[in-house]
Parts: sequence; structure tokens; C-alpha cells
Amino acid sequence: MEIAILLFERLTALDAVGPYEVLSRLPGATVRWVAVEPGPKRADAGLALLADHPLEQVTAPDVVVVPGGFGTRTAMQDPQVLEWVRSAHETSTWTTSVCTGSLVLAAAGVLRGVEATTHWNYLEQLRQLGARPLSQRIVHRGKVITAAGVSAGIDMGLRLAQQIAGDTVAQAIQLSIEYDPDPPFETGSPGKSPPEIVELVRRAAARLEAE
Amino acid sequence: MEIAILLFERLTALDAVGPYEVLSRLPGATVRWVAVEPGPKRADAGLALLADHPLEQVTAPDVVVVPGGFGTRTAMQDPQVLEWVRSAHETSTWTTSVCTGSLVLAAAGVLRGVEATTHWNYLEQLRQLGARPLSQRIVHRGKVITAAGVSAGIDMGLRLAQQIAGDTVAQAIQLSIEYDPDPPFETGSPGKSPPEIVELVRRAAARLEAE
Repeated sequence: MEIAILLFERLTALDAVGPYEVLSRLPGATVRWVAVEPGPKRADAGLALLADHPLEQVTAPDVVVVPGGFGTRTAMQDPQVLEWVRSAHETSTWTTSVCTGSLVLAAAGVLRGVEATTHWNYLEQLRQLGARPLSQRIVHRGKVITAAGVSAGIDMGLRLAQQIAGDTVAQAIQLSIEYDPDPPFETGSPGKSPPEIVELVRRAAARLEAE
Repeated sequence: MEIAILLFERLTALDAVGPYEVLSRLPGATVRWVAVEPGPKRADAGLALLADHPLEQVTAPDVVVVPGGFGTRTAMQDPQVLEWVRSAHETSTWTTSVCTGSLVLAAAGVLRGVEATTHWNYLEQLRQLGARPLSQRIVHRGKVITAAGVSAGIDMGLRLAQQIAGDTVAQAIQLSIEYDPDPPFETGSPGKSPPEIVELVRRAAARLEAE
């Protein structure tokens, strides 16, 4: 089973690494890190992840994973990226995204009229791209699974592992990464967070996006 | 504030990327990816993360983060790694680890007689290295914070963010990465997991370790 994870400049590293850490543990899985041009891609907070393969080397992966990050703004206007997503989706068993990766799926035409999710701050943008946004952590419609912001990629990966390999394997993977989360606050989604915290994050995101 | 994250061959990528994704969002923070030799380091499941700096370029970071992975077996016998950890710990404000990264801290002498944690499957090994292992998700003693396996680095990062910058900033970071976890199973730690799942993970780890 071939899992292709798309890389591009200014992605959010955890969006990609969360599903990778889960899905790479599936029996028989091979993860391919792909990009328009192979080489190191700098994530939005500075870490460089290495893309080993150009897009044309991985044309029919079983699983497609598109991470998010500010770099999606450029990626979703890149014809090579869009064509690859469109074409890989035609033959994929699963097409997935984390965070604003769903904006790239939508820009490629994969989410037209389809219920999907994204980072809570970008649901309206997802709507403008033709999808039907839902405020949920994971949205699973047919062979498309979209996850909410950043850390939701771990939950998405485990649900996909369950679909692919069943409960026992998925449970073993969850235990192997000791995923028994214990967040210090109850502020992980906008509905649970004080309005001033939501506003703080919105303002910070707008500043970063303008950079 | 300078945050140094140690890289080495066969680390577990999420161990490093979890805390990075949190701590890099702290106001004024700079993350430095360090290794004995700069360049790409292959994680245990194939992703290459780029180390930008040799150890001798980042000698007095405010925060030290040591990730785990099967590669710790080699790292904890590397005199350059151990000397760097020892010396960086002398001047650090915080010294931290995720997963079996605590074995490296212990091998460097940082955890002698100190309560600490690690991935649930390696608590006995941590004891043999002179620490006092606790089955907890996060153990905070003085300026040393150790986290349990892999995904626990996100929780550790948020608790450290709270210590460094206070509740409001840490809450905003938690919301920005939409960390409102929703694992599909209740099998994230060995105490909650059926014994056959625990056994499955132990056997898989033993196989991988022998590779």
C-alpha cells in the first residue's frame, strides 16, 4: 500500500507528520513524500522536511494525504499540484487532508458539493471553494476524509488505519504512539474557547498570512 | 528564546514535531534543529528531517528537546551527543524529552535519581540508567520535563508553553493547532488497553529494534 504525502513550502509540519506517524505503522505500508520539485521544504515554523519524489514518480498512490499551512495559498494555485491531486484522486482508495489541506483538495475540484472540514478559521474559505464545510473534527464522505486543524491529523490517521486494517491494528498503533491525550486546557476548539482567545488566534493568523 | 531540538538517525518524527509545533508558536521563540552532523536525518518510518546546525553552533539553548525513537540506542552511546546534552543542560532553563529521548538524558547523567518518564515499553530501561521511572504522561521535576511515548510531546509542549508564557498564550497555541483530541479508541496507554494489544505492540517493537 502506497501512501503519498504532499509537501510544499510553508506547510504546517504536524499536519503531515501526524498522519505519517500513524499510517506508516500499517503492515505493508510505504510512505512516499512527494513535491513538485524534490528536496527540502521549509514548514511555516522553520523545520525542513525532505520530499524524496517528484509528483510524476508517484502517480497512483492508494492513499493521498494533503497537509495544510499558509503555503496552501500558493499550492492551490499551482497547476502541477492541482493536476496531480485531481489525477491521484481518480485512482486512489482514500483521498485525505488535514487542516487547510482541504482548500487544496477543493481547488483541485475534489470537494465540489461535498461535505468536508478544515481548520476552524478557514471554514468560510472552504465554502467559497465549492465544498460544504462542517465544524467537525473529522468528516468522512465516500473515499474522502478531511480533518480539522493541525493535530486532527492524528485522529484522522487512526480512523483511516481502522478502515484499512481493522480495529486491532488501529488500536495497536494508537498504543504504540501512546495516544492517550491529556491537553492542559479545554480550549482546543473555538466553541470551547473564551472569545478573547479565539480573537487572539485569528489576529495572529492574519498577521502570519500577510507575511 | 532559543529552543534546540536534537536530531539523529532513526528518531521518531512526531516526538520532535509535536513539541516543535507548539513551542515554535511562542512569542520570540527560535527553534534550532541540531545534530552531530547537519543534514537530513531519516526518522524510523522514513521521513527525513533537516538538521540545520551542528551541535557546537548551539551551545546554550534556553530549552533543550530530546526526541526518542530506535535511534536513541546509538545516540545514547555517542560521546558528542552526551557531552552536548550534559553541557546544554547546565545552562538551560528547561531540559525536556519525549518518549525514549529520556534514555538519552539518563545516559548523559541528567536523570540520576530523578523521577522521569518514557514510552511505556521502556520504563525498566530508564530505571537501569539510574532514573526513577513513573508511569505518567508528563513528569515535571525542577527544570526537567519528560514526556511519555510519541504523542505525549504535544501535551508536554503545551505545559511548557504555559510555564514559559502563561495560560493565555498556551491556550491560544492549543486553539491554533486545534488540539481538541478525539481518539477513536480508549487504548492509548497500556493500563487501558487489552493485554493482547499490549503484547502485539511489544512484539512489533522488539522486531523493529532488532533491525
